[in-house]
Amino acid sequence: MADLNLSMNLATLRNGSSFGEMIDDCLRHGATAIAPWRDQVAAVGLKEAARIVETNNLRVTGLCRGGMFPAETAAGRQANIDDNLKAIDEAAALGADCLVLVVGGLPGSSKDIAGARAMVRDGIAAMLPHAKAAGVPIAIEPLHPMYAADRACVNTIDQALDICVELGDENLGVAVDVYHVWWDPNLASAIARAGDMKRIFAHHICDWLVPTTDLLLDRGMMGDGVIDLRGIRRMIEAAGYNGPQEVEIFSRDNWWKKSGDEVVRTCVERFNSVC
Amino acid sequence: MADLNLSMNLATLRNGSSFGEMIDDCLRHGATAIAPWRDQVAAVGLKEAARIVETNNLRVTGLCRGGMFPAETAAGRQANIDDNLKAIDEAAALGADCLVLVVGGLPGSSKDIAGARAMVRDGIAAMLPHAKAAGVPIAIEPLHPMYAADRACVNTIDQALDICVELGDENLGVAVDVYHVWWDPNLASAIARAGDMKRIFAHHICDWLVPTTDLLLDRGMMGDGVIDLRGIRRMIEAAGYNGPQEVEIFSRDNWWKKSGDEVVRTCVERFNSVC
Repeated sequence: MADLNLSMNLATLRNGSSFGEMIDDCLRHGATAIAPWRDQVAAVGLKEAARIVETNNLRVTGLCRGGMFPAETAAGRQANIDDNLKAIDEAAALGADCLVLVVGGLPGSSKDIAGARAMVRDGIAAMLPHAKAAGVPIAIEPLHPMYAADRACVNTIDQALDICVELGDENLGVAVDVYHVWWDPNLASAIARAGDMKRIFAHHICDWLVPTTDLLLDRGMMGDGVIDLRGIRRMIEAAGYNGPQEVEIFSRDNWWKKSGDEVVRTCVERFNSVC
Repeated sequence: MADLNLSMNLATLRNGSSFGEMIDDCLRHGATAIAPWRDQVAAVGLKEAARIVETNNLRVTGLCRGGMFPAETAAGRQANIDDNLKAIDEAAALGADCLVLVVGGLPGSSKDIAGARAMVRDGIAAMLPHAKAAGVPIAIEPLHPMYAADRACVNTIDQALDICVELGDENLGVAVDVYHVWWDPNLASAIARAGDMKRIFAHHICDWLVPTTDLLLDRGMMGDGVIDLRGIRRMIEAAGYNGPQEVEIFSRDNWWKKSGDEVVRTCVERFNSVC
């Protein structure tokens, strides 16, 4: 059990459980790494969350999420940056391996995706000094292109790495979530490039269901979809990243309706059998 | 009216109208170019469809669709190729500018997207001699990555152009549909590359709605979404393609419920105001 190289992203357990109950569900099945969301931390309180993490000797593979930089006004963009600075402090308090960024999409009624991408770059640049001072690595999570309008206009690993190169801070890297990148014709070379740059900060897993009935909330349990999880794992390990695979499943009509016990047990079983 | 550089993809008019009624709706609003689907042609009969096209002096900007190459068995793949040969003949009979390919996704329960992509390349290679003999250009349509599993594992313009390069046939090009490619961080360079290669064979338009409630059937009317249609049009025209913009909108719960007259009228209005 101690060697289980798996982390439970707590978004997988959005069934109404408390923070403490989620941790109990994880520990019962040998999962000693977690990745909470900020609202989940806020619900129990940052201090209490940090106490639970420390008491149980949990690894926090990431805090979800910072980002959401674009806004129609300069004041709006600054407010978003300020919120990211708070997120850095929360990640530091939890001892998280990184703060994960979902960078945001088009602001307001804008159709200017290049402009939104520039806002993202500028927003990240503005938060990096505080991240370095706090010792919190920042992980850009490229999101699937179907989220380009409303959640993240960074949509490939290479695009995220280009931002890393442009900003020139080794504390900035990428979170590779198989759901978002499995389709990329350049996936193998992009992961190798990320490894060469030593910028793989996290590895998220779930599965792509066929059919997918909702753009956001119909992600699948590993093994129930079409993603070659072992193939991508081999790419990521060959690129030098051997950290936990973090299970993150948004599943409103299926896994979010089940008990945390059943969900974590299934995650561990599937991790051992298909990942 | 004669200068209206717009084509109506007849998938936009899936409201139960007959082929002849759809053509009447197009002509009433000055649209003298169409792109029918094979099932729509079959419903009226190929000869009758060709007669209607000729009688009305219609331009056929494309026949939708060939493709769907991957299959689990060699016999299945050959059957798919045979069907593409028939599609070429139908495109020739209609005098279509090109046969559009939706190349297909993962066969059966496969998780091998690289393998599926090889099947696509091999399938296209097998149909090219007949296409050249028939004088029918073949246009690979890269589909949005959200269709990689079940409809098309060619997901970017660059990926389609790489197939064109590999197969080395100038009769093979790409259909650029804004819905599928608008998010691509490399869009400008990919369109320029396609232009340099003289491989832009079609330009499809619609819009990306926020929110999008269905992965396949919730596409938007131009102007109702977030795509910078004029910006992409400028890229495509700068790349040397000045053919009709072809309106293709899958919209089960909205536009498919309206009369063809209203749909075509709206397409023309929006074409003139936002495209």
